[in-house]
Amino acid sequence: MADFLTSQDEDFAKWYTEIVLKADLADYSPVRGSMVIKPYGYTLWERIRDELDRRFKATGHVNAYFPLLIPMSFLEKESNHVEGFSPELAVVTHGGGSKLEEPLIVRPTSETIIGHMYAKWIQSYRDLPVLINQWANVVRWEMRTRLFLRTTEFLWQEGHTAHATEQEAVDETLQMLDVYTDFAVKEAAIPVIPGRKSETEKFAGAVGSYTIEGMMKDGKALQAGTSHFLGQNFARAFDIQYLDENNEQQHVWTTSWGVSTRMVGAVVMTHGDDQGLVLPPRLAPIQVVIVPIWRKDKERESVLQVAEQILQRLKPLVRVELDRREGYSPGWKFNDWEMRGVPVRIELGPRDVANNNVMAARRDVPGRDGKTLLPMGELETLIPALLEEVQAAIYQKAVDFRDSHLHDVTTYDELKEVVETGFARAWWAGSREDEAQVKEDTRATLRCIPIDQPGGSGTCVYTGKPATEIAIFGKAY
Amino acid sequence: MADFLTSQDEDFAKWYTEIVLKADLADYSPVRGSMVIKPYGYTLWERIRDELDRRFKATGHVNAYFPLLIPMSFLEKESNHVEGFSPELAVVTHGGGSKLEEPLIVRPTSETIIGHMYAKWIQSYRDLPVLINQWANVVRWEMRTRLFLRTTEFLWQEGHTAHATEQEAVDETLQMLDVYTDFAVKEAAIPVIPGRKSETEKFAGAVGSYTIEGMMKDGKALQAGTSHFLGQNFARAFDIQYLDENNEQQHVWTTSWGVSTRMVGAVVMTHGDDQGLVLPPRLAPIQVVIVPIWRKDKERESVLQVAEQILQRLKPLVRVELDRREGYSPGWKFNDWEMRGVPVRIELGPRDVANNNVMAARRDVPGRDGKTLLPMGELETLIPALLEEVQAAIYQKAVDFRDSHLHDVTTYDELKEVVETGFARAWWAGSREDEAQVKEDTRATLRCIPIDQPGGSGTCVYTGKPATEIAIFGKAY
Repeated sequence: MADFLTSQDEDFAKWYTEIVLKADLADYSPVRGSMVIKPYGYTLWERIRDELDRRFKATGHVNAYFPLLIPMSFLEKESNHVEGFSPELAVVTHGGGSKLEEPLIVRPTSETIIGHMYAKWIQSYRDLPVLINQWANVVRWEMRTRLFLRTTEFLWQEGHTAHATEQEAVDETLQMLDVYTDFAVKEAAIPVIPGRKSETEKFAGAVGSYTIEGMMKDGKALQAGTSHFLGQNFARAFDIQYLDENNEQQHVWTTSWGVSTRMVGAVVMTHGDDQGLVLPPRLAPIQVVIVPIWRKDKERESVLQVAEQILQRLKPLVRVELDRREGYSPGWKFNDWEMRGVPVRIELGPRDVANNNVMAARRDVPGRDGKTLLPMGELETLIPALLEEVQAAIYQKAVDFRDSHLHDVTTYDELKEVVETGFARAWWAGSREDEAQVKEDTRATLRCIPIDQPGGSGTCVYTGKPATEIAIFGKAY
Repeated sequence: MADFLTSQDEDFAKWYTEIVLKADLADYSPVRGSMVIKPYGYTLWERIRDELDRRFKATGHVNAYFPLLIPMSFLEKESNHVEGFSPELAVVTHGGGSKLEEPLIVRPTSETIIGHMYAKWIQSYRDLPVLINQWANVVRWEMRTRLFLRTTEFLWQEGHTAHATEQEAVDETLQMLDVYTDFAVKEAAIPVIPGRKSETEKFAGAVGSYTIEGMMKDGKALQAGTSHFLGQNFARAFDIQYLDENNEQQHVWTTSWGVSTRMVGAVVMTHGDDQGLVLPPRLAPIQVVIVPIWRKDKERESVLQVAEQILQRLKPLVRVELDRREGYSPGWKFNDWEMRGVPVRIELGPRDVANNNVMAARRDVPGRDGKTLLPMGELETLIPALLEEVQAAIYQKAVDFRDSHLHDVTTYDELKEVVETGFARAWWAGSREDEAQVKEDTRATLRCIPIDQPGGSGTCVYTGKPATEIAIFGKAY
């Protein structure tokens, strides 16, 4: 265990904050609830962004950019939307030295301003669908903030699409849920559960909200992405109409979907351990670090020379760095890179140089078990293969953890017990009020009604009524 | 001439606004002075961003992200800085339903918040240099706005670096000026003039400001990027100190440098013509468009089939699209893609299919002169080569235009005349007051003192005093 780090068992929340700060992912800022994303954390976010963006483009979406400042009156056009967001607004009242006639809000999300523009752009069925995504910052005045998980300002992408038919919009909503699931599983190695939000938990202004829920290492749930079917709510509020093929005016059907810098927190809390971060190779800013080792000065030159050769050979294939720092022992460097979660460390000493091999150490497997001697000549094939192996292994580890902390329950007492350490899965037919009562009793919430349902029917864990769906309950971030 | 477009000669400003709107680069928003960057314009910006970002990383910089909202008191710590920016601020006075104790400003630029963080992060000479860049939105309350050129909110990158010595910081300032020049010349095909800003025109809080100045097709100047040597001004204001190798506290030396969405406007106004946009191939969202042509329905299938094959062959090599739109004539499509500035159009008709060739039409050379028959089998080599040719040609065209509108002048009368249509280059030894008088007389400003100086000395065009430097004067955006 890294002695400067609180252990996860001792205090998971403290561990989280410490590792985010110590691994240079982020820092507190002087602005209440806002954080600074430091270069290492931002590079991780760039990797997340690039992998999501690639998937958005592959599914026909394009990026655009809409104004940060939104007239207050826009928010008021959709009643549920304004009700949901008004407690969280930052308001600009002065501009250029004068008081504004109408206050502007700093966007908490962009349905309203985008809805206004779509009303202008969409005239005919030929203009549909509109498939736009925006990468942007948003501000929500949060009372309790946590680095990456809940900050007053955060970075995200928000997709906003408009369609001719309800079915198309529903399909888009579910397609983007699939895209998020695929990203989470393949890149972030997080075995998320995709599902529908309950009426209580859905987005302000949505007809239906979908989510991907991850389980963190303390057994708590983290909502890592959402996709909303907005029906015609915003189309009516902003009068987004098109002339259909029969020359009749119709309102469009819209969706919105988003993933934020919160995903960085999800990666940290899904894979990290008492030594620090464990980053999935596909997202890691640095996938491989080479640590040269020498005791005598005369060994230094030959070791560094070979290390430099390895660096140049691997550079076109993986994100690799050579730790040239002077004045630090190899052991100190090992700990440092472990703390930063670099998936593979290459140790290179005089004996390795003499024997024409290197020692590769896996971050995800501690100690000797994670070390393998690799022949120098085959690094170009063995190192990328090792990274794939690590990626698969940490995913499997997360699946195993999740599965061993997710239990089917049939009684309310069981549910109460299970949510203390993980997720409870149960038949559910409760009302809004029932859901609120469960929250009050247990502090756990209905995380989602999974897409993947067993079928058939059962007895609601809370009301005892006949139920046709199962739901997942858990305490959440 | 595109009949829907005002000609450049008739009214250049009107031409500019029309083409930005019609080519779907941007749209007006309901928020005063803010614009919406539409997908086609945003993709152009993404290309600019990627090419700049690649250069930043190649010169050792990393990205990070700092808060949007900055305490008002921060701005007041550097007196010139607050004086320069306070008329342009948007101020957040309320958050989460309550009045804030201290108002927050929406960042107009980030020297202050970043300075505050650097003071925390930098302790020792080992922490230096700090080479950070940020991609972000900023807000400056502008009175007169123009799409891309001057908007209340814009997107940009702002580099902020801290160094142990003055020389290092000066070197960094000039290195980034070089990076911007290299980008402008090689990617945007804009022959910018790199130079130093006069005392009057320098950045609020800088010791020295550098700029790249482009000449637009109306002979006016556009500042397309700036790099500032900030001396120790911000280091003192925010107390950014480090312990040097002799164990003494020293203030760091800082720089900042930025390029914004304004660059999109520069591309439009450097290369565009009366038919619309002319985009440099390296930045064009679509480099090649394939327009299939048929008269009879039976021709349709075979033409589309071959067009599809060409699309698949070119896709790995260039950014290419196939125009499958129904109900539009080939002529209409030609005009449409010309208006959007796509560098190369491939026309494919039944005769081309039969003869196993395609007609390639260059956007930058109008009419028959720009058309070449290309053998079908060699498109993989000929099309990328043609794009390179177009890139070089539009750069040369811009150089020729600039050179024919840039004149050395020796008298004030000549200067007055030349700045009506272009740039005047003259020996200069004037004061702030002299510069202000020139501006009042001519509406032209001292754009820059070029890095590239003739050497020797001459007579100041305005004061008649001995001068050792030449300066460029022009009317500016």
